[in-house]
Amino acid sequence: MNSTIETILSHRSVRKFTNQALTKEQIDTIVHSAQMAATSNYIQAYSIIGVNDRNKKSKLAQLSGNQAYVLESGHFFVFCADLHRHQLVAEMEESVITESIESSEKFIVAVVDTALAAQNATIAAESMGLGICYIGGIRNEIEGVSELLELPEYVIPLFGLTVGYPDEETSIKPRLPKEAVYHEDAYQSDLAMTEQLDQYDEVVSNYYYERTNGKRAERWTEQMSNMLSNPTRMNIKSFLEKKGFAKR
Amino acid sequence: MNSTIETILSHRSVRKFTNQALTKEQIDTIVHSAQMAATSNYIQAYSIIGVNDRNKKSKLAQLSGNQAYVLESGHFFVFCADLHRHQLVAEMEESVITESIESSEKFIVAVVDTALAAQNATIAAESMGLGICYIGGIRNEIEGVSELLELPEYVIPLFGLTVGYPDEETSIKPRLPKEAVYHEDAYQSDLAMTEQLDQYDEVVSNYYYERTNGKRAERWTEQMSNMLSNPTRMNIKSFLEKKGFAKR
Repeated sequence: MNSTIETILSHRSVRKFTNQALTKEQIDTIVHSAQMAATSNYIQAYSIIGVNDRNKKSKLAQLSGNQAYVLESGHFFVFCADLHRHQLVAEMEESVITESIESSEKFIVAVVDTALAAQNATIAAESMGLGICYIGGIRNEIEGVSELLELPEYVIPLFGLTVGYPDEETSIKPRLPKEAVYHEDAYQSDLAMTEQLDQYDEVVSNYYYERTNGKRAERWTEQMSNMLSNPTRMNIKSFLEKKGFAKR
Repeated sequence: MNSTIETILSHRSVRKFTNQALTKEQIDTIVHSAQMAATSNYIQAYSIIGVNDRNKKSKLAQLSGNQAYVLESGHFFVFCADLHRHQLVAEMEESVITESIESSEKFIVAVVDTALAAQNATIAAESMGLGICYIGGIRNEIEGVSELLELPEYVIPLFGLTVGYPDEETSIKPRLPKEAVYHEDAYQSDLAMTEQLDQYDEVVSNYYYERTNGKRAERWTEQMSNMLSNPTRMNIKSFLEKKGFAKR
């Protein structure tokens, strides 16, 4: 196993950091790494906002559900799907691209481009000994985050990424059995999947039990069922459309 | 610079492969790496279909716009956003999750989860000396691909990934200037962005000119304008809704 794969397989989310800030050089390397991810037809449909301003960071932590590790980390990045740049391109080239950039197809393109870039940033950071945590919580108050960062039309904040020096030991969470995720030639049967989920439930339950000295032991299906029974962020669709995304 | 960052910064798409197949061990490492990516609230909302069947691979190459390198590669993966597994969870736990999994929020979660996993697969493969190319072309005939792979409700094919031993030398494409992608504290002005795009146009034009001995010299804004003036895959929205995604 090479060191890159070792880095990838050692991933765990870090939610407690020392207060050591990232250097400009580290930030540059992380952004450069993000930019080198593959991009659909060279479109590069994302932007990254680096938040230095302490007041803004504090406000973002609050908008994300009072997650202290947004404020106390080495650096905080907000990854945005971005087709605004292309709107400027259309002005420069005197072309009309509205139908295209407002399509669900281009929304997928922008979200995928953004996530590929973010995962490159993550792996680069982790290879330097830093820890990370993705912050989907910025979608709790997506409109407020968008205003705070002055995002124009055709730009939406997708998720945050806190990066810094880990100040806690965390463990690797067991993933679904390979067979439940990787199918050969066709999607597998519900019967096979259900059996795999039963086995996985035992693994996850044991994981929590051991980690919490018996205080928690919930199964994965139980956790998912509880989470998904409670719909959240139901305003996203109207926000997307307001910003020009996935309208058709 | 460590070897992981070297791998990340050396990325280029590979569209011509030797006919050497990946070993089972290589495929396992790639899938394991994909699975270790971060996942929103532990949801793991994706599936990967590995296509071995030669007839299916040939049909997929055709559905993707006759891209020979789908057929002639070491292995072909199709990455799918997947909330079907969670529908099974709801049956097992006797809960109702329809409103949640049909939301635009959970569509974003599933697309981001899938792309993070895919980029881990990419970096793992590239670190082993393999080359890759993302195949967005599978969305040309998304319904046909979905039927071919027998994808149930709440599963959609997002993109393919060809992986194999490179049989061509390709060059690294210049990305947008860092300043056009990385903003500090707030999204930058249109004026600044337009100036950066002007500079970038020159870089891209020179890149094509040199690579093609003067046969091509298009600017990036020109290329984007041409591509986006022509809306494509306008059936994606109705396909998503039919499959249960982003309905509300």
